[in-house]
Amino acid sequence: MRIGVDLGGTNIKAGAVDDKGQILFRNSRPTLVQRGVEPIIQDIIEQIEEILDKTNASLQAVKSIGIGVPGLVERKTGKTIYVTNLFWHNVPLGEKLSNYFQRPIYVENDATVAGLAEKIAGSTQGAKNSVFITLGTGVGGGIIINDRVFSGSHGWGSEIGHAIVGENFYTCNCGQNGCLETFTSATALIRYTQKRIREGREDTLILQKVHGNIENIEAKTIFDAAKKGDALGREAVDRLIKYLAIGIVNIFNTLDPEIIAIGGGLSKAGDFLLTPLKQEVEKRLFSKEISYGDIVLAELGNDAGIIGAAFLGENI
Amino acid sequence: MRIGVDLGGTNIKAGAVDDKGQILFRNSRPTLVQRGVEPIIQDIIEQIEEILDKTNASLQAVKSIGIGVPGLVERKTGKTIYVTNLFWHNVPLGEKLSNYFQRPIYVENDATVAGLAEKIAGSTQGAKNSVFITLGTGVGGGIIINDRVFSGSHGWGSEIGHAIVGENFYTCNCGQNGCLETFTSATALIRYTQKRIREGREDTLILQKVHGNIENIEAKTIFDAAKKGDALGREAVDRLIKYLAIGIVNIFNTLDPEIIAIGGGLSKAGDFLLTPLKQEVEKRLFSKEISYGDIVLAELGNDAGIIGAAFLGENI
Repeated sequence: MRIGVDLGGTNIKAGAVDDKGQILFRNSRPTLVQRGVEPIIQDIIEQIEEILDKTNASLQAVKSIGIGVPGLVERKTGKTIYVTNLFWHNVPLGEKLSNYFQRPIYVENDATVAGLAEKIAGSTQGAKNSVFITLGTGVGGGIIINDRVFSGSHGWGSEIGHAIVGENFYTCNCGQNGCLETFTSATALIRYTQKRIREGREDTLILQKVHGNIENIEAKTIFDAAKKGDALGREAVDRLIKYLAIGIVNIFNTLDPEIIAIGGGLSKAGDFLLTPLKQEVEKRLFSKEISYGDIVLAELGNDAGIIGAAFLGENI
Repeated sequence: MRIGVDLGGTNIKAGAVDDKGQILFRNSRPTLVQRGVEPIIQDIIEQIEEILDKTNASLQAVKSIGIGVPGLVERKTGKTIYVTNLFWHNVPLGEKLSNYFQRPIYVENDATVAGLAEKIAGSTQGAKNSVFITLGTGVGGGIIINDRVFSGSHGWGSEIGHAIVGENFYTCNCGQNGCLETFTSATALIRYTQKRIREGREDTLILQKVHGNIENIEAKTIFDAAKKGDALGREAVDRLIKYLAIGIVNIFNTLDPEIIAIGGGLSKAGDFLLTPLKQEVEKRLFSKEISYGDIVLAELGNDAGIIGAAFLGENI
């Protein structure tokens, strides 16, 4: 048995995971970000202890304990450098938990964790080299190289969302212009659509759906409109697909993985996203004569955070 | 002893290399591309046999034989898919040489080979993860991950020159618009300068130097003018540096190597290129609070091809 913790901005989810990546037992508590660091870490400890209790497992019998966090993590120490949604800055999470449990605790970025989960029990099983891209509020990446998690020499790697792929009308949170995230996240999709409406593209189902209040536009509103043939919806989705294809071609040209899996909220659009994306990637590949890796939808959804975290110890 | 062969568009260079990456003996023959495949492979065989003869080594005593080629190579078979400068297409180079010598022959892209050479005996020694970027007629990349060459699952990876980083006024040879190569190669530098002169920027040292014939502009002409404070020279070099910085930041954000080495013809500009490049990268990094890898000039120059090829067998 392994234990995985998914520390998110809304909930702390923890679980016991078996050798095949099945969750045997799970618990969840609200993160309540405003409490600050210590009460959150206390909850993580209690959730892990509850898992040990409920599964009748001793700490010694647990193969590995890992935590995924939505931020930048220092590989060696498990220190979280930034966790934007939690307002955490330089929190020695790994050290605090290691001190408590007296054993190594593995901390990694949540997209990296989800990428590992897909490799253990999801869409990229069996691939030696794979890349996971999550399209949500932001864009994250998880890289598996030679069957192991790869996040670089310090842990700053796999930030695929902050690869620069063009020039954009707004600047990324990171301070750069042109990050993949500003073209292919839910936020990017919404901001582009709002901008086009402000520019006068008011003849759209999207605006009807939100009763004229563009602040209420969600990614789903835009995808739904695009599916119905709405011109602005189509334009916004096509733009997202264009840049996602560029990001994916860049991955094929540099990392050449066997498989790329797309997860996160936007991946719920399913084949409506995947089919044109594959066509767009195909057009842009370096060579038409050779076989590149496949592009698929991720399979594990919200469970990926617990499953991947549980396997970090053996795969870092 | 190992044997490395650097198959280029102008010369076939081969050498015997010791454990430290020193070249003990070398020979060279003109490639004479127009001869076609077989006579070139025959020359490679004869050059290897000459090395064995002159170093009094038996084939059994040679630890590894490797070849670097300026093109796309299929990892498993050593088949060269494209070697543009040689007009080679789907040549089973690895197989032909393996059949002759009755032992494995390792074939890789020349930039990957040069990256390995820098790791064995040059600028990136001691780094577990490093990236080599060569700025010449084109832009190539060599990736070392966990002390080994990484060119992806099939061998199509490390094509850093074909990562898309923006939009450009001309299309890359590969058919894409916006490849790093079209902003940061010698070709890109020259084409941009020629374009600006055609647009009316005629008050430049560059035009004086080539006596008004823009076809004679070389990368060095532009760098020399920039060093003297020429405005157009400065503009063209600054643009190259801007996009090279983007390419490097993308590498830091995805692969987070300990060190990035810049080689190829343009790297001869030395600190005139490196100092502003580092400043530009610094400005664009994801976080100012953490330490990223270093950026240095490559050290091995033209010998990298022989040295890296010689070590492929132990490092693929």
